[in-house]
Amino acid sequence: MMASIDCGDRAGQPARGEDVLFDLREFRLPDGRELLLYGHAPHVGEARDSLPPAPASGGAHLRWHPLRREWVAYAGARQGRTFLPSAASCPLCPAAEGRLGEIPFDRFEIAVFENRFPAFTASAVPPAEISGVETAPAQGRCEVVVFSDDHHAGLGTLCEDRLALLLEVWGARVRALGETYPYIFPFENRGEEIGVTLHHPHGQIYAFPFIPAQVRRAAEAQAEALVIERLLRDAGNFVIEEAEAAVALVPPFAVYPYETWIVPRRRVAGPQALDDAERQAMAGLLGRAVRRLDGLFGTPMPYILTVQCAPKGFEATFHMTIDIRPFRRDAGKLKYLAGVEQGTGVFLADVLPEDAAARLRAVPTVEAP
Amino acid sequence: MMASIDCGDRAGQPARGEDVLFDLREFRLPDGRELLLYGHAPHVGEARDSLPPAPASGGAHLRWHPLRREWVAYAGARQGRTFLPSAASCPLCPAAEGRLGEIPFDRFEIAVFENRFPAFTASAVPPAEISGVETAPAQGRCEVVVFSDDHHAGLGTLCEDRLALLLEVWGARVRALGETYPYIFPFENRGEEIGVTLHHPHGQIYAFPFIPAQVRRAAEAQAEALVIERLLRDAGNFVIEEAEAAVALVPPFAVYPYETWIVPRRRVAGPQALDDAERQAMAGLLGRAVRRLDGLFGTPMPYILTVQCAPKGFEATFHMTIDIRPFRRDAGKLKYLAGVEQGTGVFLADVLPEDAAARLRAVPTVEAP
Repeated sequence: MMASIDCGDRAGQPARGEDVLFDLREFRLPDGRELLLYGHAPHVGEARDSLPPAPASGGAHLRWHPLRREWVAYAGARQGRTFLPSAASCPLCPAAEGRLGEIPFDRFEIAVFENRFPAFTASAVPPAEISGVETAPAQGRCEVVVFSDDHHAGLGTLCEDRLALLLEVWGARVRALGETYPYIFPFENRGEEIGVTLHHPHGQIYAFPFIPAQVRRAAEAQAEALVIERLLRDAGNFVIEEAEAAVALVPPFAVYPYETWIVPRRRVAGPQALDDAERQAMAGLLGRAVRRLDGLFGTPMPYILTVQCAPKGFEATFHMTIDIRPFRRDAGKLKYLAGVEQGTGVFLADVLPEDAAARLRAVPTVEAP
Repeated sequence: MMASIDCGDRAGQPARGEDVLFDLREFRLPDGRELLLYGHAPHVGEARDSLPPAPASGGAHLRWHPLRREWVAYAGARQGRTFLPSAASCPLCPAAEGRLGEIPFDRFEIAVFENRFPAFTASAVPPAEISGVETAPAQGRCEVVVFSDDHHAGLGTLCEDRLALLLEVWGARVRALGETYPYIFPFENRGEEIGVTLHHPHGQIYAFPFIPAQVRRAAEAQAEALVIERLLRDAGNFVIEEAEAAVALVPPFAVYPYETWIVPRRRVAGPQALDDAERQAMAGLLGRAVRRLDGLFGTPMPYILTVQCAPKGFEATFHMTIDIRPFRRDAGKLKYLAGVEQGTGVFLADVLPEDAAARLRAVPTVEAP
C-alpha cells in the first residue's frame, strides 16, 4: 500500500518568503501531523508507507511552580518515546523496503515534522483542577528538524550549503510559528551522554505558549544594555574565529567548558532576519565550531545547541546568537549540572573561557565535504 | 610521624549552641584547613598522618553573566580534583596504616572539613581585570561533610540517630557560616550518573558571598505567598508519608520524576531552628525517603539533595525544606537537563507528581539498622 500522504496547496512550489530561496513541499501524515520537506530544488524521492499513527497526546498540561515562578510542562506520553533504536530501525532515516519511518520518502534534504511525543500541542485542552495549584493547557507546538537523510551525518560533517539551508529552515519556522506563539526555540541535543534517544542527526523546535521567565530576563538585559554588541566589541582573546559577517567566540562569562557562541555582527532578532552573507558566514563558522569541539578530545562532543531568538516584543533590541554548550570538560570527564547549579543557579566552571578559546583556535578544522 | 594537628580552644568540649547536644572537636590540618568532628560523646579515635597540604587555590574568581544576571564561579584548580579513586585509596575513609586521608583519625561519626578544591575561599583576592566584564573575588567557603566513616554507608542505611545528628551538623554550620556569609547551601550529590567523583557518603556546604538570584526569587515568592504552608495544606494525594512534626511529599509542581521534599510542619528558616522532635521526625522521613527511591527501581537512586535555608534577610518568612531530585525516571533511563531545561528554564516532566507519590508510598521501607 502506498502512503496516504495529502499534499498541501503549496506542495512542490518554491516558498515565497522574504530571502527564502529553497524549495518547500508540505504534506500531511495519515495521523494529521504536518511534514515539511526543504531542499534545493526537486529533491523529494519516491513516497513510501508511513509509520502507524502517533498515540493520542492527551493529558499534556502546565502547572505553575510558585517558587521558580515558571510553568512546568507535564506530558506523561513522552515517557514512552522511542529510546535508542538500532540504526536499522531508525524512524528518522528515509523509509525503505521493510522499514517504516517518520519521513515516508526514500530521500530528502531537511525534513520538519510535528513531534510524535509532543510536550505542547495546538489541541491541548484545559487539565483537571488540582487544589492549590494553578494549571493551564500545554498549548504550543513541538517539531522535529531532521538535518539530513544520512544517519551518520552531523553538523560537523554536513556541507556548508546544507548548514545555510538549515539556518533558512530555522528562520522559516521561527517566522511561521511566531505568528501564533510568543517564543520559538530551535535547539539540538546531541550525544547519548545528555539523554539523546535517537542518533540520526536532528534537532527540535518548541513553540511556547508563553515567554519563559529566563528568556524574558535575558531579553530584558539585552534591551537595557545591548549586551551582545559589547561582547563583540571586547571579544579580543575570546574569539575562536572571525568572518566578515559573524564571529565564533567563547563568551568571557561562559557557564560550560568550551562553550561556543556563533554571533552575527549585525543585530538581528533571529535566523529569519539574516541575509545571505550572514547565513553563509554563520554556516561556515557553525560547521567548523562543531569540528573543533569534536577534535578537542578526539571524540564526538556531546552538546546542547540553542538558537537564541527574540521573544515577542523584544525584536528591536535582541541580538540573536547560536550557543553551543559542550558536555565534556576533559577527555573522559563530563560536565554535570549538580547540586550547586541546580539548587542555586550559580555555575561552577573549571576551564577559563580565554583558555578554552585558545585551545579551540588550535584545533585543526578540515573543511567539510 | 604523627599528624601535626592543632586542637582549637574548644577541642573536646561539647558544643554550647542552643539546642545542640552533640560533641564537637575542632582541629586544624597541617595546611591550615579546619576539620570539625561531630559525634555523640567521646568518638574520636587515634590520630594518624594526614594528606599532603592542599594545592594553592589561587585564581578562583567570579565573573558577572550579563544575560543570566548572575555570577559564574571560575576555579581552574577544581579541574584537578580527585576523580573516582578506588575504595582502597578513598580520601574520606578513616586514615589507616598505609593510607592517608582527609580525616587523620581511625574512626569518626560525622566530619566536616574545608574542601581541598574550593570554588570559594575566605582568602580569595581580586582577579585581573577583563575588558567589558565585571569580576569579583570568589570569597566564601566550601566544606565537605562526611556522613560516616563507613565507605559503603549512605543516607538510606545510616541509623535515624546519625541522620538526626546530620541535621544538627547542618544547623550548626548554617548558624556559624551565616554570621559571615549571606547564603549557606548544604547539599549532597549522590551517584556517578551525576558526576560524583567520590563514592564515600558525603555532602558539601557552600557559603556564598552573595544571595544567588534564583534563591532570592524563591525566598521572595515565599515571603509574598507562604507557598510552603499552602503546599502542606493541600498536600492530599501528593503525600508520601506523614509524621507529627514533618511530612514527606512530592510537590504537585515537581520538576524531577519522583522528586521528594521533606518539610517540617512548623515554619522554620533552616535546620538550625528545628527542635528535637522535628529533627527526629525529619531524620526518619529522610532515611525512609532515600530507601523508597533506592527501592523504586531496585538500584541505588542517583540524586541531588539540597537543604533549602533562608538567605539573609528572609528568616522570618522562609519555610525550610529538604529537596531530593532523583535522576532516574525509569529503570535504566536517566532524567537529563537538556536543551529545553537549560535553554529556557522550563522543565519537561514525564511522571505526574501524584503518580510518583503513589508509587513511592507503595515501596516497602525496611527500618534502618
